[in-house]
Amino acid sequence: MKKYTSLNDIKNLSDTVQKAIQLKENPYQFTDLGQHKTLVLLFFNASLRTRLSTEKAAKNLGMEVSVLNITNAWNMEFEDGTVMNLSTSEHIKEAAMVISQYADMIAVRAFPTLKDKEKDTSEIVLNSFIKYATVPVINMESATDHPLQALADAITITETKKVDKPKVVLSWAPHPKALPHSVANAFVHLMHNMDVEFVITHPKGYELDSEITKHFPVEYNQEKAFENADFIYAKNWSSFNDYGKILNEDPNWMITKEKLGNAKFMHCLPIRRNVVAEDAVLDGENSLVIEQANNRTFAAQIVLKEILKTMSKEN
Amino acid sequence: MKKYTSLNDIKNLSDTVQKAIQLKENPYQFTDLGQHKTLVLLFFNASLRTRLSTEKAAKNLGMEVSVLNITNAWNMEFEDGTVMNLSTSEHIKEAAMVISQYADMIAVRAFPTLKDKEKDTSEIVLNSFIKYATVPVINMESATDHPLQALADAITITETKKVDKPKVVLSWAPHPKALPHSVANAFVHLMHNMDVEFVITHPKGYELDSEITKHFPVEYNQEKAFENADFIYAKNWSSFNDYGKILNEDPNWMITKEKLGNAKFMHCLPIRRNVVAEDAVLDGENSLVIEQANNRTFAAQIVLKEILKTMSKEN
Amino acid sequence: MKKYTSLNDIKNLSDTVQKAIQLKENPYQFTDLGQHKTLVLLFFNASLRTRLSTEKAAKNLGMEVSVLNITNAWNMEFEDGTVMNLSTSEHIKEAAMVISQYADMIAVRAFPTLKDKEKDTSEIVLNSFIKYATVPVINMESATDHPLQALADAITITETKKVDKPKVVLSWAPHPKALPHSVANAFVHLMHNMDVEFVITHPKGYELDSEITKHFPVEYNQEKAFENADFIYAKNWSSFNDYGKILNEDPNWMITKEKLGNAKFMHCLPIRRNVVAEDAVLDGENSLVIEQANNRTFAAQIVLKEILKTMSKEN
Repeated sequence: MKKYTSLNDIKNLSDTVQKAIQLKENPYQFTDLGQHKTLVLLFFNASLRTRLSTEKAAKNLGMEVSVLNITNAWNMEFEDGTVMNLSTSEHIKEAAMVISQYADMIAVRAFPTLKDKEKDTSEIVLNSFIKYATVPVINMESATDHPLQALADAITITETKKVDKPKVVLSWAPHPKALPHSVANAFVHLMHNMDVEFVITHPKGYELDSEITKHFPVEYNQEKAFENADFIYAKNWSSFNDYGKILNEDPNWMITKEKLGNAKFMHCLPIRRNVVAEDAVLDGENSLVIEQANNRTFAAQIVLKEILKTMSKEN
Repeated sequence: MKKYTSLNDIKNLSDTVQKAIQLKENPYQFTDLGQHKTLVLLFFNASLRTRLSTEKAAKNLGMEVSVLNITNAWNMEFEDGTVMNLSTSEHIKEAAMVISQYADMIAVRAFPTLKDKEKDTSEIVLNSFIKYATVPVINMESATDHPLQALADAITITETKKVDKPKVVLSWAPHPKALPHSVANAFVHLMHNMDVEFVITHPKGYELDSEITKHFPVEYNQEKAFENADFIYAKNWSSFNDYGKILNEDPNWMITKEKLGNAKFMHCLPIRRNVVAEDAVLDGENSLVIEQANNRTFAAQIVLKEILKTMSKEN
Repeated sequence: MKKYTSLNDIKNLSDTVQKAIQLKENPYQFTDLGQHKTLVLLFFNASLRTRLSTEKAAKNLGMEVSVLNITNAWNMEFEDGTVMNLSTSEHIKEAAMVISQYADMIAVRAFPTLKDKEKDTSEIVLNSFIKYATVPVINMESATDHPLQALADAITITETKKVDKPKVVLSWAPHPKALPHSVANAFVHLMHNMDVEFVITHPKGYELDSEITKHFPVEYNQEKAFENADFIYAKNWSSFNDYGKILNEDPNWMITKEKLGNAKFMHCLPIRRNVVAEDAVLDGENSLVIEQANNRTFAAQIVLKEILKTMSKEN
């Protein structure tokens, strides 16, 4: 693996998931691989799970980790040819090339604006790092994607499923704030790569990017979508077509224990209790959310390990 | 030791103090004990001494340390059953359970509101971590307690005292801001566990929680309280009865070199010079404040070490 | 080396540069030297390059690193004798002495106010750390100096120069914000210690501190200054005489590819593209800015190594 910016960077998903599960059983078997290698984590947005799990994954491999929170002190310029006489003080070209000299890998988190659809869809921050960094880049959630979460979810589903081809439902759920599409997109992308029956359900107007969802059925009736589900993955997102808008906070879309039935409940966290899902779901036996978060460590660790292996072969 | 959230978690204080003094002489004798163990430090409030000393203590034991400053980006919910459709974005249940998967111990700093007495007294943040975390919790100063400071003070007094049963005075001192009771409470708690003659002195209206102070005399005349003192511990706190209020900034309560006499001067730092104590006290030979801060490292280190030992026995 | 607060702390510059170049070839040859040694990085101002390069340099030597961003939560007092009943909550005396107990070296970044010339020129923050810290202090850019940048620049010039005594020009360049003099001062200081022909060029009114520049010619005609230059070092600074003011943003002072000719281009970064220098300069083959940033690691590493060596001899 030469980078990890989307699930496409994984050649064989089920093989990678199996390797991650083996790492989980014995996380310290490759502590030499990361020796004298530095991972720089760049956060343009705050992070709890991603920060701690990625840092732990790197240290499990013997790497050094530097965490940099990019605040207003660095207003980075991403456009080419700009006369930088306004608020931006450093161009991504220099930033990415410079950090590449202090890091053996750069992991980046950069959320969407949810205001400028074109800019968000172009993944200007992540793609600028890919373009200008001279070391492997890892996506810790970008404007439209969250492949480390997707890989953790693949591990969780693989560990938990009781049938060969489970039915998985991705359900929109209410939320008081406008949220990105990245987790939903990454999960849809994941579903392309797993042997599942997959259905998406949401109120009308909440259609995701059709380029991403085009091969999957959308069922606007949540109850119908949930029939015989093995896994229900809840997530809020703002409208994609009426970009970044909240069209609806209908509490009837909240996941309840009754709706869940025997299905396993998944969510990437953080979750707003009694808004996205009721307490009885999160405190019930069918919730996988804590294990999903646990698997973030091993998703990150297998990615780092595969990149380290590629680097050591090249030398 | 299975956690360290109050001085009560220490079974034998003088034995623990002796072990800390031995660690201080040779801090690197247990670097294997912390191998592949991660300490996560969670700061809901800023920290200098606690941050650096606890981090150093952990690294002295070979542990990995992750520091997370909890800013407004994470507004955590601590109440059960809330419909989280307002400002809080993550419930402590998930946060504590999730962080427990990335950490072998969690250390938490969370100051009081000084506005809601019931909430502060209930120690909602610390107790929620104790309740929901699945790994040992360490108190890095909570709403009403600061047991790492108390343990460091025990080390300092033990190293310095010249008589078997010294006279120790805790004196309120002026301060322009309303401050918590945690350090004062922790010190009173410590005095229960040491062989000392202990007196508390403060202006009327500044009585601490009587549940904590009930076995000790309060002397409202500072001069009288200081007679024949071996140690004078200065600290400001806001009113407990008229909760969180500043009743008095009377500069006559400032500790002066003249008042101090031959007693040793103690304070947890940071200290406002010429408000809490005059320069001549802090710059004089009788000041122990720098050594108290130094002992924070070894207080933290003995606590971490005892918890690591318990963990390794359980495995 | 007992500290590194100015270029004066280096006894033999060319020897130190050669040792840094050797470290760059094999950065991990002294990993034992820093064992059980902690470097505390204190940032009163934000940092990208300095933070990451200094952290990497320390870890390359086997040191532990703690990074502390000093925010408004700690308003430090630097004046002696103050009655601290206003906004400052901790005196530098305690802070420096306390941190010295958690650190084997303290590195400090503290920018000038650009409002109070006397205060800035007195280097009150850096000098207070030097005065009160009981461990070696490293300057990570102070009010008037940036000796780690200067050392990195010495490495870059030494690696790149094609003639024994190159012509080096320091040119003021436009910038929309008022910037410190520290990089320019440090570079002038460096030029005293290298075998170069050195010229300073800037618009009238932008004279640097004459105490620093007095041995070098100032040429107000940029074109003339650039004739036959081997290295052009661009940097904006605010007025020193009309302290902290922007007198002029004349875009004619921007460095262009045409002006640069065959000279190498240097800048400490971050740089505002098409304001300080045009894209064609930064993207051209003659730009050394990325290599200058790379050399920050080895400048810091040789400094840390020399201080560690002195410490180990003293023990």
